[in-house]
Amino acid sequence: MNAKLQWLRNKINSLDLQGIIITNPINIKYLTNIEAEGTLLITRKENIYLTDSRYIEYVRSILTLFDEITVYDIKGLTKDDYENFFLFCENVGFEEHHVTYAEYKEMIRKYKIHNLVETEKIIEKQRMIKDEEEIHEIIKACNITDECFKYILTYIKPHMTEKQIAQEIERYYKENAQGLSFETIVASGENTSKPHAVPTERQIQEKDIITIDMGCKVNGYCSDMTRTIFVGEVPEEIKPIYDLVLKNQEQVLQNYKEGANTRQISKMVESDFKINGYDLIHSIGHGVGLEIHEPPYIGNINDIILKENMIITDEPGIYIPGKYGVRIEDTVQITKFGCIKLTNSEKNYIII
Amino acid sequence: MNAKLQWLRNKINSLDLQGIIITNPINIKYLTNIEAEGTLLITRKENIYLTDSRYIEYVRSILTLFDEITVYDIKGLTKDDYENFFLFCENVGFEEHHVTYAEYKEMIRKYKIHNLVETEKIIEKQRMIKDEEEIHEIIKACNITDECFKYILTYIKPHMTEKQIAQEIERYYKENAQGLSFETIVASGENTSKPHAVPTERQIQEKDIITIDMGCKVNGYCSDMTRTIFVGEVPEEIKPIYDLVLKNQEQVLQNYKEGANTRQISKMVESDFKINGYDLIHSIGHGVGLEIHEPPYIGNINDIILKENMIITDEPGIYIPGKYGVRIEDTVQITKFGCIKLTNSEKNYIII
Repeated sequence: MNAKLQWLRNKINSLDLQGIIITNPINIKYLTNIEAEGTLLITRKENIYLTDSRYIEYVRSILTLFDEITVYDIKGLTKDDYENFFLFCENVGFEEHHVTYAEYKEMIRKYKIHNLVETEKIIEKQRMIKDEEEIHEIIKACNITDECFKYILTYIKPHMTEKQIAQEIERYYKENAQGLSFETIVASGENTSKPHAVPTERQIQEKDIITIDMGCKVNGYCSDMTRTIFVGEVPEEIKPIYDLVLKNQEQVLQNYKEGANTRQISKMVESDFKINGYDLIHSIGHGVGLEIHEPPYIGNINDIILKENMIITDEPGIYIPGKYGVRIEDTVQITKFGCIKLTNSEKNYIII
Repeated sequence: MNAKLQWLRNKINSLDLQGIIITNPINIKYLTNIEAEGTLLITRKENIYLTDSRYIEYVRSILTLFDEITVYDIKGLTKDDYENFFLFCENVGFEEHHVTYAEYKEMIRKYKIHNLVETEKIIEKQRMIKDEEEIHEIIKACNITDECFKYILTYIKPHMTEKQIAQEIERYYKENAQGLSFETIVASGENTSKPHAVPTERQIQEKDIITIDMGCKVNGYCSDMTRTIFVGEVPEEIKPIYDLVLKNQEQVLQNYKEGANTRQISKMVESDFKINGYDLIHSIGHGVGLEIHEPPYIGNINDIILKENMIITDEPGIYIPGKYGVRIEDTVQITKFGCIKLTNSEKNYIII
């Protein structure tokens, strides 16, 4: 059986569950590598994937004997089949954060489940720690992002619009990766003052500041990187802000390691920003994996203790409303003794 | 109060609900025109929109006094505020098909609701019938789609890849509409035999058949159109299939009108295909509105009686595995006496 399913079996055993119904497609991808519409059942004896005729061929092509997953076409299933899956199971788990109330009621009816039990994101929590294969995919996505950034620096010219640049990044990712991990942000001039700017028709001008937040997917796994760059020169008034953001971004890298408390790291940045007269208005980072934003969430609110092989971002930013903003972000892997940067694009003043 | 909110108030009244919590963002957009993250509460006396600081400015800019919606920043709300919203309400409705089981439990706790009641998609059902303003937006999206199709016929050249063509359609829609209503399908040669083909690197060749399924959004409202076109000439073996699909597509248009039973229409197509030796492998159409696929779903399974001002598609198709396929689709508006085609691109043999 594949290692992730084996882990899940042990886990539900320890929770006194005799089965579990997995419906979150990202958790199913994580556990089985299947990307389709369907339901994964872990029953007493079997691992079962229920899907329909559209996906049967594809699913069979993905799975190996080693996976030990039996695939059923739901068209062929009777009322009895559904009721037999969890026969003699006292407690069956489900994903209460993914299943709607209507689906919850339907599950109880269809599978005739005695006690359908909330499982408190056990799989999402496990997904925070990446295995070798997952890290490998993320590294690939980060490398492509570095390459794409290098390319886009040669592509950007004055009078291009933000949208045009964002579309070129998208084109590059479609060609070289499996698409975007999120809608690319290209913000220029005063638009950089909005952390979540959407690319507009604004044209790049001489002496502009440009923030580019970009990432792609490789086999479902995401990358995430932000750079703030300059056209022609770095305006004197922005230099101290850029330097302050970069200093803190580097400081966070210094502090990211197994055992570190992320709230303390976030507070450290906040206080350094405050001393210099600026606010920290968004969190410092987030987990990256099959989702572009996933646990752990790194900021002032939660005490998270970092663990080896978490993949997270480091992305402090300062925003002066109506004027400009600076954000610098890398995706990094936590290790026992520090962290490894997975995105490696230049961070000193980048002038195009 | 805006007409849609007034309708909702009357509706919940008739269901003996003293309030309702709306969380489905598409239903919120439908009722209020707001596109943000937040929750709409219809309480005994007030219409309330709860959101956070990111959206407050935007939401206030969207709403008029006439809407009679009070906007709150959730940051300022206390435990008591939440508990007071539905004070003295016996029954409060919620959207059981949108709310997760975890959110359901949290709602009961947070709002201290006595009896949280399933509402069986009352808003989705109402959304099937479009008002004048909605129809106007859909017509705009359909017109842009006709224009885009006309343009793309001049753009396609042999040796271009399917992906390239799909990207050009996307670029056109980004420029002229508010983006895509779904991922454009451009399938060529044997790829046309898959109804849900994804654009590939396959290059267009002389004598190719190409299926293009495309649609855009205008103020959230979608368009949907498919044409199957030919490069250089229409292969003799495909002609009878094209003619049969087109004949049935026209026949469906003839039958679409208020009072018509859609299962009968679908059965009619199925039997005409069968007589000619082909299967009907997907449904005949679907509703189009704020979602690209929404009720009513038109096929062999459900008896739907069409009503005036439903906007639906008409899209029969025939697919010969491994060889080719033909699909022709329009978006149409149902009237008392027939239907009005909203997409109007050529349907006779299109040869580029």
